[in-house]
Amino acid sequence: MNILEIIDKKRLNKSLNENEIQFVIENYVNGNIKDYQMSSLLMAIVINGMNFDETYYFTKYMINSGKIIDLSSINGIKVDKHSTGGVGDKITLIIAPIVSLYAKFVKMSGRGLGFTGGTIDKLESIKGFNVNYDIDEIINQVNKYNICISYTSDELVIADKKIYALRDASGTVASIPLIASSIMSKKIASGADDIVIDLKVGAGAFMKNKEDALTLAHTMINIGKKFNKKVVCILSNMNDVLGISVGNKLEVLESIEVLKNGGEEDIRNLAIEISSRMISIANNIDIEKAKEKVVKSLEDGSAYNKFLEFVKIQGGDISSLVIDAKTIYIKAYESGYIKYIDVEGIGEFSRSLGAGRINKDDIIDNNVGIKIFKKCGDYIEKDDIIAQVFYNKDMPNIVDKVNSFFTLTNNKVDKNEIILDIVE
Amino acid sequence: MNILEIIDKKRLNKSLNENEIQFVIENYVNGNIKDYQMSSLLMAIVINGMNFDETYYFTKYMINSGKIIDLSSINGIKVDKHSTGGVGDKITLIIAPIVSLYAKFVKMSGRGLGFTGGTIDKLESIKGFNVNYDIDEIINQVNKYNICISYTSDELVIADKKIYALRDASGTVASIPLIASSIMSKKIASGADDIVIDLKVGAGAFMKNKEDALTLAHTMINIGKKFNKKVVCILSNMNDVLGISVGNKLEVLESIEVLKNGGEEDIRNLAIEISSRMISIANNIDIEKAKEKVVKSLEDGSAYNKFLEFVKIQGGDISSLVIDAKTIYIKAYESGYIKYIDVEGIGEFSRSLGAGRINKDDIIDNNVGIKIFKKCGDYIEKDDIIAQVFYNKDMPNIVDKVNSFFTLTNNKVDKNEIILDIVE
Repeated sequence: MNILEIIDKKRLNKSLNENEIQFVIENYVNGNIKDYQMSSLLMAIVINGMNFDETYYFTKYMINSGKIIDLSSINGIKVDKHSTGGVGDKITLIIAPIVSLYAKFVKMSGRGLGFTGGTIDKLESIKGFNVNYDIDEIINQVNKYNICISYTSDELVIADKKIYALRDASGTVASIPLIASSIMSKKIASGADDIVIDLKVGAGAFMKNKEDALTLAHTMINIGKKFNKKVVCILSNMNDVLGISVGNKLEVLESIEVLKNGGEEDIRNLAIEISSRMISIANNIDIEKAKEKVVKSLEDGSAYNKFLEFVKIQGGDISSLVIDAKTIYIKAYESGYIKYIDVEGIGEFSRSLGAGRINKDDIIDNNVGIKIFKKCGDYIEKDDIIAQVFYNKDMPNIVDKVNSFFTLTNNKVDKNEIILDIVE
Repeated sequence: MNILEIIDKKRLNKSLNENEIQFVIENYVNGNIKDYQMSSLLMAIVINGMNFDETYYFTKYMINSGKIIDLSSINGIKVDKHSTGGVGDKITLIIAPIVSLYAKFVKMSGRGLGFTGGTIDKLESIKGFNVNYDIDEIINQVNKYNICISYTSDELVIADKKIYALRDASGTVASIPLIASSIMSKKIASGADDIVIDLKVGAGAFMKNKEDALTLAHTMINIGKKFNKKVVCILSNMNDVLGISVGNKLEVLESIEVLKNGGEEDIRNLAIEISSRMISIANNIDIEKAKEKVVKSLEDGSAYNKFLEFVKIQGGDISSLVIDAKTIYIKAYESGYIKYIDVEGIGEFSRSLGAGRINKDDIIDNNVGIKIFKKCGDYIEKDDIIAQVFYNKDMPNIVDKVNSFFTLTNNKVDKNEIILDIVE
């Protein structure tokens, strides 16, 4: 077997067998297969695709390339949650305390690159919050308090880290089989029993349309079956910012609003849906029953109290959540219905403020970010306040820039539904 | 402009514009575009193709990446000859003296990798033969003697050298637009006025079937038109070894046989066709008239005499052409019609004897090689001599190995025509 024969097969749109996929992943990780060979194979995969068996084997050997976390000494079913990534996505902060009221919640999370930080970065914007746990500590804490969020060990799914970095740099990201195996390998290696996936659809997401999102969902569900894990995909709208805030500390503060039974409708509804699905699976109860529990926990304050407890156990000081940044309100240049919001542009803008990383070693400014007060379908009058920017370094043309994210029209526009579909 | 956007365009099967192709080639040569990005783009090109404009721009900026030889101070039209590469191809050695009887013959040639050496290696198997000329020396010699074959400067078409090495290592060779631009950029940068291309078709060649070969031919002819150069493609059979011999000194000796009005029919006919086309273009005379001249030069000894003169001017000692190797005749294991000859296998075998290079610094043994006495369609009896191997290092199972190159059948098989088509 050699890599050129394998590249040739995929170039000719033939499917690869298990041995060939094992060979590719093992030899790319150990350096026998060069980056320029792997990127050529990846482009052939992006264009010609992989069938389900190939995708399953790809996932399997990605998992085998690194450590696999064993959480079996946690009592009860561990349902993990994953988001494919969106702008303003702070859902984990909200659902973690809610779920842990009724089931075990354990999550390994990365820092990663991106428009804003990941869950770990958001939590670290709370002074003193500790995210560096070893496996025994995680297990002990979850058995005692039902909740733990910890930084992911670097040794999980080594192949995915290497392949993802190459895909990013070689224009080979856009492949449903590769995206599915990347997500599923990480979740499975993290030790979850079952998985609820928040699959973002729209301008601000990898999946631009519902059709592709459904294909990805079914691929991940079928991979889950092979590993005996139930997977539920919630297709959610990413043509708006989720909630209002983008930026680490701003997002923690918005999460607290939701946990206090407030917050925007979109983020509240999505948080309720995801946490209910997780509780339903973990306890094997009806989804409607689970939803009742969730809503009750928001209304009676138990969700917020659990959040306060969670912050305290992991060493965080909730009183530290004060924004230390200059701020400016942005007024609309014109009137009209919002037809389109450049969510990706808003993400990029937040990153340029310092809210996210471009390079691995960039330091995030937890205080900066943006609030977007309007959503697609809203009518705005000229001079209405549409956004608020929090900044610590000078940004030229800030008002022009923020106005440019909004495309207006004189005709009425439908609002986006937050939940587009649920697939299981 | 950035490489990821360009990769994305080609991944989505859109065509690249002139600026984008210029950007790719210039930035790959200067190292701004990484190998893993270029190989990903190349795979997208291999699968999705390039239209004619893209192929032309690709050729243009490849040419511009290196030195361009100016042969305008040679009087008369310079017709160059190129072969896409076959096993036992020694045609240049035969046509060079024939053409130079009636027109200017100047050829820059490489050493390259391959089953056997290139033209330069074959000539260097003649003791004392000098192939290291600078441009002024080439021009002077051609103006005086009508003939010169010299080693190619390393500075021609730098992009092609780098891209070809990457294609070879990343499984992205099989692309007609890339093959066409690679061949044409080298020929045009070498200063030819017009070009006759011997386009090999069959098991032992890049182009496995006539349909692909015709597509390649028309692409090269059209690129030629853009540069105001006439291109004639002779599609020739590569399901047999060309002539009998494979190996540097053996091939020089076989060329001499043909120049002495002997040799196998296939190689004689192909040499007559190619040299006649070149003379016809250079002197703007009818092809039949050119053919008469060529045949006459073989019959009256002037072609062979010109060869002797050519060897002498470039410092070679013709008396050095004695094979210094052990030899073994190979008998057929069975009787039957030859249905298929593994020409590529024979090439690989010759290389393993030491007749060609695997790595750039390998030293060729000019004395080794193989003679194949039979062609597809021939009937052989068990124990007939089918081949002769010349070797200087022990090769296990040599008789088994050589017999394995022949696939026999009881049914009559048609012989291959040497010339399949001529396109201009």
